[in-house]
Amino acid sequence: MVDVVIIGLGCAGYTAAIYCARYKLLTLIVGDKEGGTGMAAAEVGDWPGTQFITGPELMENLKAHALTFDSVTHKLARVERIAKDIDGFTVHLQGGEAVQGRTVILTTGTKHRLLDVPGEKEFAGKGVTYCATCDAFFFKGKDVAVLGGGDSAVEGAAIAAQVARTVYLIHRRKEFRAEPYWVERVLARDNVKTVLERNVIEILGDTNVTGVRLDKPWKGSDTITLDGVFVEIGADPDSALALDAGCALDERRFVKVNAGMGTSVPGIFAAGDLTNASNYFAQFVTAAGEGGVAANSVFHYLSKQRNF
Amino acid sequence: MVDVVIIGLGCAGYTAAIYCARYKLLTLIVGDKEGGTGMAAAEVGDWPGTQFITGPELMENLKAHALTFDSVTHKLARVERIAKDIDGFTVHLQGGEAVQGRTVILTTGTKHRLLDVPGEKEFAGKGVTYCATCDAFFFKGKDVAVLGGGDSAVEGAAIAAQVARTVYLIHRRKEFRAEPYWVERVLARDNVKTVLERNVIEILGDTNVTGVRLDKPWKGSDTITLDGVFVEIGADPDSALALDAGCALDERRFVKVNAGMGTSVPGIFAAGDLTNASNYFAQFVTAAGEGGVAANSVFHYLSKQRNF
Repeated sequence: MVDVVIIGLGCAGYTAAIYCARYKLLTLIVGDKEGGTGMAAAEVGDWPGTQFITGPELMENLKAHALTFDSVTHKLARVERIAKDIDGFTVHLQGGEAVQGRTVILTTGTKHRLLDVPGEKEFAGKGVTYCATCDAFFFKGKDVAVLGGGDSAVEGAAIAAQVARTVYLIHRRKEFRAEPYWVERVLARDNVKTVLERNVIEILGDTNVTGVRLDKPWKGSDTITLDGVFVEIGADPDSALALDAGCALDERRFVKVNAGMGTSVPGIFAAGDLTNASNYFAQFVTAAGEGGVAANSVFHYLSKQRNF
Repeated sequence: MVDVVIIGLGCAGYTAAIYCARYKLLTLIVGDKEGGTGMAAAEVGDWPGTQFITGPELMENLKAHALTFDSVTHKLARVERIAKDIDGFTVHLQGGEAVQGRTVILTTGTKHRLLDVPGEKEFAGKGVTYCATCDAFFFKGKDVAVLGGGDSAVEGAAIAAQVARTVYLIHRRKEFRAEPYWVERVLARDNVKTVLERNVIEILGDTNVTGVRLDKPWKGSDTITLDGVFVEIGADPDSALALDAGCALDERRFVKVNAGMGTSVPGIFAAGDLTNASNYFAQFVTAAGEGGVAANSVFHYLSKQRNF
């Protein structure tokens, strides 16, 4: 039995592991995929104190840091279920193995919705990105498209318009469902062109993105020449495990946490993009802060139960 | 007039500046002292992804990162008052100068209470530290003292006892005012010695700390030989400016913030150790996360007022 099982190998999870280690907690960190959504960031410019780093490099540093501690064990495995037992929790892994922990920290993050068209996977990180706020800065003076009609798409287009030469905001419907102030703001920009009632059916490129193909012609052509494509059609919290374990979710299925990152289930904590914390502002640095708080809370929770 | 005046040159302030810059906000960051309380950290082992760095080095990196952006201006000056005006706020500096900002982010942090005895200043960072949680890890197998009787002292002693050889918990009163579970826990440790009804009147050392002198002998001697001294007699939020500007404080004078790090005064945000956010867990990484959230909120707040 370990003191804490951290589920998820992203920024929140590894930061929680680092803090748990500093509290001398026996820690297992487990997940089926290294690095979380942060791996998709071609260039991270907002990790404080580090002017430029790639997402995979940052995640490698976080992992290496966590694994410097003898008390931290790392396991690459899919978690299938969390069951309450008398001393804490049994975490069932794919293939029948199970691990026991006195507490659990869930850091399973979100999954960006994919466009699911030809070219999307090939050019991911080569012009195709899933976070305009994170990545717009790297398209200064370039032509980009933002795909989507919700808040994140329209906000993303507004942010991109501050640096890009031209922003094509491509939406399948006639109207945006984003908040009016975002819509007004984006429409006021000279360098934003709205392409409505069109679907992107292919992302074009050679070594990098060169454009998109539309399902219907727009201004006489069914292709638009581009340097970058931001797919902003939403992200869903990966909260199935949390729900199954009895954790309360909000109306968008994010895990509800208190100030100490505790869920509604005593002994289960959560951190990172999965949760409703940090005003839903999903960044490396907010995930890290939440991971630290969750570890601190685990330490306090266990301290009340026993002497180490 | 700038978009945002960030007050405080610590981790929360510089991270807020980095995020404000990424939103293309015209930003002034101002304070009378570089780096905040983090400067006192001789070794930082919990900045995720960076296994070891000194507090001053980390702060230098944060500052350098923020100042790579043309939209960020830095000013070393004491802020005396924040006055509401029609377009936002006038921030009055020592010497009569004033700057105007549409919004303000307060990141003035906390001030550790000082013991105020000979040797304390000389050996700060040379064995004298103000955060057992942060620094205990670096005293593996050593003899240390924790000074104080509240939660942070007793918790600090418990954490230190997991790695240090001997922990002397020195308190001026007969009983600890920390939560009973912390007291029980620390008293259960074989390697914790409680030294009650004694005041430390001098910190002894050569190049580094070598011990403390007590006001009354303990076990036949008025000195204790030590490698480290954790002064844990409390920290006070530096919230006078916030209070004067009308921001609501909690009962311990921390600035109350909502999920978006907004204070009770529209247009004034706060982040870092000054606030009641992150479950009062005051770390570099929580300050950074909060700084990011505050910047994001400033961006939304200004977006609702005008087009950039």
